[in-house]
Amino acid sequence: MTALDWIAADWGTSRLRLWAVGTGGEVLAQAQSPAGMGALAPAEFEPALLSLAGGWLPDSGAIPVVACGMVGARQGWIDAGYRAVPCPPLAPPLARAPTSDPRLSVWIVPGLSQLKPSADVMRGEETQIAGVLAARPGWDGVVCLPGTHSKWAEVSAGEVVSFRSFMTGELFALLSAQSVLRHGIAAQDADPGADFDAAVAETLSRPQALAARLFSLRAEALLEGLDPATARERLSGWLIGAELAAARPWWLGRDVVIVGDALAGAYARALAAQGVQAARMRSDSVTLAGLAMARALLRKDGT
Amino acid sequence: MTALDWIAADWGTSRLRLWAVGTGGEVLAQAQSPAGMGALAPAEFEPALLSLAGGWLPDSGAIPVVACGMVGARQGWIDAGYRAVPCPPLAPPLARAPTSDPRLSVWIVPGLSQLKPSADVMRGEETQIAGVLAARPGWDGVVCLPGTHSKWAEVSAGEVVSFRSFMTGELFALLSAQSVLRHGIAAQDADPGADFDAAVAETLSRPQALAARLFSLRAEALLEGLDPATARERLSGWLIGAELAAARPWWLGRDVVIVGDALAGAYARALAAQGVQAARMRSDSVTLAGLAMARALLRKDGT
Repeated sequence: MTALDWIAADWGTSRLRLWAVGTGGEVLAQAQSPAGMGALAPAEFEPALLSLAGGWLPDSGAIPVVACGMVGARQGWIDAGYRAVPCPPLAPPLARAPTSDPRLSVWIVPGLSQLKPSADVMRGEETQIAGVLAARPGWDGVVCLPGTHSKWAEVSAGEVVSFRSFMTGELFALLSAQSVLRHGIAAQDADPGADFDAAVAETLSRPQALAARLFSLRAEALLEGLDPATARERLSGWLIGAELAAARPWWLGRDVVIVGDALAGAYARALAAQGVQAARMRSDSVTLAGLAMARALLRKDGT
Repeated sequence: MTALDWIAADWGTSRLRLWAVGTGGEVLAQAQSPAGMGALAPAEFEPALLSLAGGWLPDSGAIPVVACGMVGARQGWIDAGYRAVPCPPLAPPLARAPTSDPRLSVWIVPGLSQLKPSADVMRGEETQIAGVLAARPGWDGVVCLPGTHSKWAEVSAGEVVSFRSFMTGELFALLSAQSVLRHGIAAQDADPGADFDAAVAETLSRPQALAARLFSLRAEALLEGLDPATARERLSGWLIGAELAAARPWWLGRDVVIVGDALAGAYARALAAQGVQAARMRSDSVTLAGLAMARALLRKDGT
């Protein structure tokens, strides 16, 4: 059986996901838990890691763990800092997290920051961008990473030139679950259809329509019994359309790669309606590929 | 001492406010409690009213109580229904709420509804619009009612012709207190200043900037220690600017009255920067004047 070489960790606010990677680069095992950064005090990160990966570790020798995401935030295991764009998505040094178990050496990827033209930060997505570049060496274009805080990043000559975050996913969660609209919005996503397309078109052509239209979901529910699934599609479409209106310079006439799963499909559909055929890459595969790039940096570093 | 003639009730989701009105129309007493519609089951409305107004009631004879607001919603004391625009803000009949105390007869003002051009509802604001018209008989113009769900209503020939709701206040509450931005936003309002003005101008001229700019509050807090008071002004300005961009047909070249207190000042300032000198009326005075109009309807009805 192949020996464990290193462990890749995608450690976000609400989830920890691990891959055990063998000496040939193959995935030997996977595990995940809800022990996200948001649920842990600094001293609780190492136990959370060991409870998931302890069984993978050999009795002697330190296994490198390479982690990305909010684990490297100020409120995380250790503040891994930010690197200012323009810069490659990954570069040494990684931040070393304090550990007491001799079987581990834990390294965390720094995030990226930008002051101009608009202050912005990312943490985790830089690793995914590196993963996109691993699959497309030398590629220039725009990476779209939909999510709680969607990112659009311009990549050129192996560097992230600039990027922009949108709170689209968080706005959707707040409006659909916490606002007065919650009474009339389905709890589950369905595949986007004609209602989604119409809603995207509405805010993409007139972004001010977002503010003007939101409350109509409540009123139509009260007056006309609006179907909650339709309401959910419309809300999603309006928010994504408003993001696309603001992100137009990032996709108009550009070569776009969308990283993600179900939500990436909605973005791809919305862009296709604008004549942009975006490529799609799965979230977990680009994360793992990016973490492997970070692992390679450690090797060069002699670690 | 003047005798109690009737009781005016402004009964919203989170608050009950009462005025004891004498036979000469003067306010004899006021009271308020947090017994809003959101906190009460149908059977709890009468006790909530009596606990605040019981001491005002004479031993014999039924005192009319005229109420407006969410007390008349489906989840309220009794569903007072909606009247479809175009229509006068108030018209008989009011809805009679079930009571068991013989000293009370409780009447609730119906809300207004609209199907075209966009589904919309109001409940409480119709009474405030009637109060504006009581102070300005025959006035044609636009009433702006900032709040959790801001309303803009076009009034002509004594009727509400059409109206539009914006979730600006609720979005502000969700973003400032529930989203990732909460870490960097002051808890209290300050008087709007230059940061507010710049933020309004930004989304009013480019409404898509709202989606593009929100996350920068978080990034500037992390990277540059953005002052939480400035962040609060900016968020408020961006949201109000986005509302004004969408509501442009309601205020451009129109005669506007803004109903409200501190928030009305922010709207008036934003409109003034666009060359619109809006009049301002206090929220409680127009509510009471509107409820007095509703009370007069009951009298005509022989109640």
